[in-house]
Amino acid sequence: MGIKALDYESLNENVKKVQYAVRGELYLRASELQKEGKKILAVEHSSNVCTNMQDVSLYDFLESTSVLGEHVVALCQAPFLLDDPNVGLLFPADAIARAKHYLSLTSGGLGAYSDSRGIPGIRKEVAEFIERRDGYPSDPELIFLTGGASKGVMQTLNCIIRGEGDGILVPVPQYPLYSATISLLGGSLVPYYLEETANWGLDINDLRQSVAQARMKGITVRAMVIINPGNPTGQCLSEANLREILTFCYQENLVLLGDEVYQQNVYQDERPFISSRKVLMDMGPPISKEVQLISFHTVSKGYWGECGQRGGYFEMTNIPPQTVDEIYKIESIALSPNVPAQIFMGLMVNPLKPGDISYEQFVRESQGILQSLRRRARIMTDGFNSCKNVVCNFTEGAMYSFPQIRLPPKAIEAAKKAGKVPDVFYCLKLLEATGISTVPGSGFGQKEGVFHLRTTILPAEEDMPAIMSSFKKFNDEFMEQYEDNLSHSRM
Amino acid sequence: MGIKALDYESLNENVKKVQYAVRGELYLRASELQKEGKKILAVEHSSNVCTNMQDVSLYDFLESTSVLGEHVVALCQAPFLLDDPNVGLLFPADAIARAKHYLSLTSGGLGAYSDSRGIPGIRKEVAEFIERRDGYPSDPELIFLTGGASKGVMQTLNCIIRGEGDGILVPVPQYPLYSATISLLGGSLVPYYLEETANWGLDINDLRQSVAQARMKGITVRAMVIINPGNPTGQCLSEANLREILTFCYQENLVLLGDEVYQQNVYQDERPFISSRKVLMDMGPPISKEVQLISFHTVSKGYWGECGQRGGYFEMTNIPPQTVDEIYKIESIALSPNVPAQIFMGLMVNPLKPGDISYEQFVRESQGILQSLRRRARIMTDGFNSCKNVVCNFTEGAMYSFPQIRLPPKAIEAAKKAGKVPDVFYCLKLLEATGISTVPGSGFGQKEGVFHLRTTILPAEEDMPAIMSSFKKFNDEFMEQYEDNLSHSRM
Repeated sequence: MGIKALDYESLNENVKKVQYAVRGELYLRASELQKEGKKILAVEHSSNVCTNMQDVSLYDFLESTSVLGEHVVALCQAPFLLDDPNVGLLFPADAIARAKHYLSLTSGGLGAYSDSRGIPGIRKEVAEFIERRDGYPSDPELIFLTGGASKGVMQTLNCIIRGEGDGILVPVPQYPLYSATISLLGGSLVPYYLEETANWGLDINDLRQSVAQARMKGITVRAMVIINPGNPTGQCLSEANLREILTFCYQENLVLLGDEVYQQNVYQDERPFISSRKVLMDMGPPISKEVQLISFHTVSKGYWGECGQRGGYFEMTNIPPQTVDEIYKIESIALSPNVPAQIFMGLMVNPLKPGDISYEQFVRESQGILQSLRRRARIMTDGFNSCKNVVCNFTEGAMYSFPQIRLPPKAIEAAKKAGKVPDVFYCLKLLEATGISTVPGSGFGQKEGVFHLRTTILPAEEDMPAIMSSFKKFNDEFMEQYEDNLSHSRM
Repeated sequence: MGIKALDYESLNENVKKVQYAVRGELYLRASELQKEGKKILAVEHSSNVCTNMQDVSLYDFLESTSVLGEHVVALCQAPFLLDDPNVGLLFPADAIARAKHYLSLTSGGLGAYSDSRGIPGIRKEVAEFIERRDGYPSDPELIFLTGGASKGVMQTLNCIIRGEGDGILVPVPQYPLYSATISLLGGSLVPYYLEETANWGLDINDLRQSVAQARMKGITVRAMVIINPGNPTGQCLSEANLREILTFCYQENLVLLGDEVYQQNVYQDERPFISSRKVLMDMGPPISKEVQLISFHTVSKGYWGECGQRGGYFEMTNIPPQTVDEIYKIESIALSPNVPAQIFMGLMVNPLKPGDISYEQFVRESQGILQSLRRRARIMTDGFNSCKNVVCNFTEGAMYSFPQIRLPPKAIEAAKKAGKVPDVFYCLKLLEATGISTVPGSGFGQKEGVFHLRTTILPAEEDMPAIMSSFKKFNDEFMEQYEDNLSHSRM
């Protein structure tokens, strides 16, 4: 027999080129260690790290909203419960009312396909949420619900990328969804570096240089991705920076893809979240009429953390109707996004209001959690900065800490001998010594010779000091070991 | 400003090439008519036809299983209900036990991402189901859960198709998922025609000819799709035919993609469903060791019809481990399939057994429904065959009727004048006259000059005679009108 179509040698090269490092050696080793009975501290939060691990309901999120949300979706899943005379014994009145509302928006309950763009009534609620947030009207016909924000990003890039001559500007470090999708679609990733020493800020001059370099290689730069708040870097973009970015997109004729999935996760007051769309509208014509913008949001982050439901939306601004139709057509191929997550999206964009039964509990809890997350961001940043050869920017938003680990030359050499990328080597040692499971910075991209790791700030506040002291003990011993070796070898 | 990346002129050409006709003029017109207050009989079953229409819980499926399933998933959505002392008042004991079981398989409830391949414990249950069905062991590591069967088909084709030189054999008529995905991925569809006069059978000689023709055009044929039971044609492939197909795939070095989503929907005894995998294993080496097979299944069909949940799986046979890893990597990009649908999949592959509380009700209901569907398939086929210029094969399986409509030349001419494809013209007239919403055959592919329409056999049995008599009245008048015109014009 010759080579077959699904033999590795014969696969689509773009599939093989995809790198997706979040699932990698660390995850596999952590899974093994757990099977052997070791307690793993999965401070990382992703399908690929949390999977199979016992602890990981990392989110201790709002009882008021999440319980309400889960009550509502449970009733929608089993709508015959609404006719049961005992329903009021298990379900609160507001959950029953909302379940009836969302069921009335579906075309036959959760068991029926929805429109491929999502349920019209829920897209309307998303539009109302955007309008309240930004102060500008939003059109439900330009909002598509998706099975998680990732799917929306993939569909959008599929429309933009025509071949390897098409480039997409992506921040480095970046969330690997972007690099992986661009590889899969056979396009070119055009990196722009976030500046660690400027708190992971974005310098428009660097951006300009990245575009110029790409053009010299014959690449047509078609779009720019921003992740705001940043993943893995945690920075929030200022309004001034967003204006510069939008002006740049206008001048360079770029589509802006605004990954804004962490918009509810902000841990300081100096730079609140501000949407790309609001800044675009504020800027007025011609920019507000010209720049093509697609913004993404999700039910997986924020107060909700309903990751396993796979719900998201994207909103299109300045996209011509014919293109909207093309995107609709492409969404139709897989029929419809899942309906339960659409209802979670409706609930997320319709939070409790003054007068609602659980409103006061909601305010109390949401403030309590946000304040706790602010403290956790601080404990973690300070903890990392107290370690030998570790420097770490404060987590302004999102939910990650991304410390730089300055590895001594001997450690880099030892990694090379072990056949490992240096930060993978470090993270594996950390895992073996402490059970702390992290993601090496090389999975996100970093400047040559610079190393990081990513953790979330989500572990329970009371566990945080012990985690950080366990980390410090490992790190400082690691550094001493490899610096000692260095001085010994010099003697 | 120049042309922007999301202007229509500038989009990825593969996106523009996609044809997806199920959402088309008929759907749009039906939606309009419904808004105007006309009662629409959405005998079609798809996101694109049912959407926004009021009636469409077309499935009157098993109370015993669907109520149990919905109870279970409701409890999994709101697991705190399990601690409520009143839970037994609303939820039966078997639902409570199963909810606890499935929650124990997740890594933190429905709000947490699962492994990108799906929850390991549920993949194990799928493997056990396959083993019971086929009599051969199945490996959970070679089963991936997906957000609907469509997503699995799209991922698989993405691995196979490298460019327009790669061809995929697809039956005509076919479910447009295949043609649309192949266009989107920039591959070549190599059609093989099902023979309507042989009850939509598959002739291996025709297949051989299709491959030969494709090769003459320089196309490398890499894979073959079979839909069994057939959509839209409703035929069940015989074991002998499956053996021929597998031998053909072996000889021609083709991956076989077995779309078996309708495996529970069979309405006759002569040709029961038999899986491609069972036939492959039965054939023994070398074929059983060599032919690469991927089989697809879903929670959207069968007794379940949980379309809106978006749950499916695919099983890989004879796929090398390195390729399995590549597919895992690609699935990781969008993190994980939605978790509620994974639980529905677990429930679907674990039906009630003798001794379970609701087992007898399950047997009674499932037999009742299957018998009713058999009667409906018969009423519909006979109804179509009683109409002027309509011929229709019996629906052996799946859930569609696909009658051929022999349009008089004058009707074809009138369609041309109206700027419509002839079967679209006919279906639009049918919709306007009767409210019956169907899908024109041109959306699925058909031989040149031959016309069809697709309906489901799902409308309630008691409504069926009225629907068929309304159809007959319209059809026979239509035929008379255009044949009359013909004879007049001849005079």
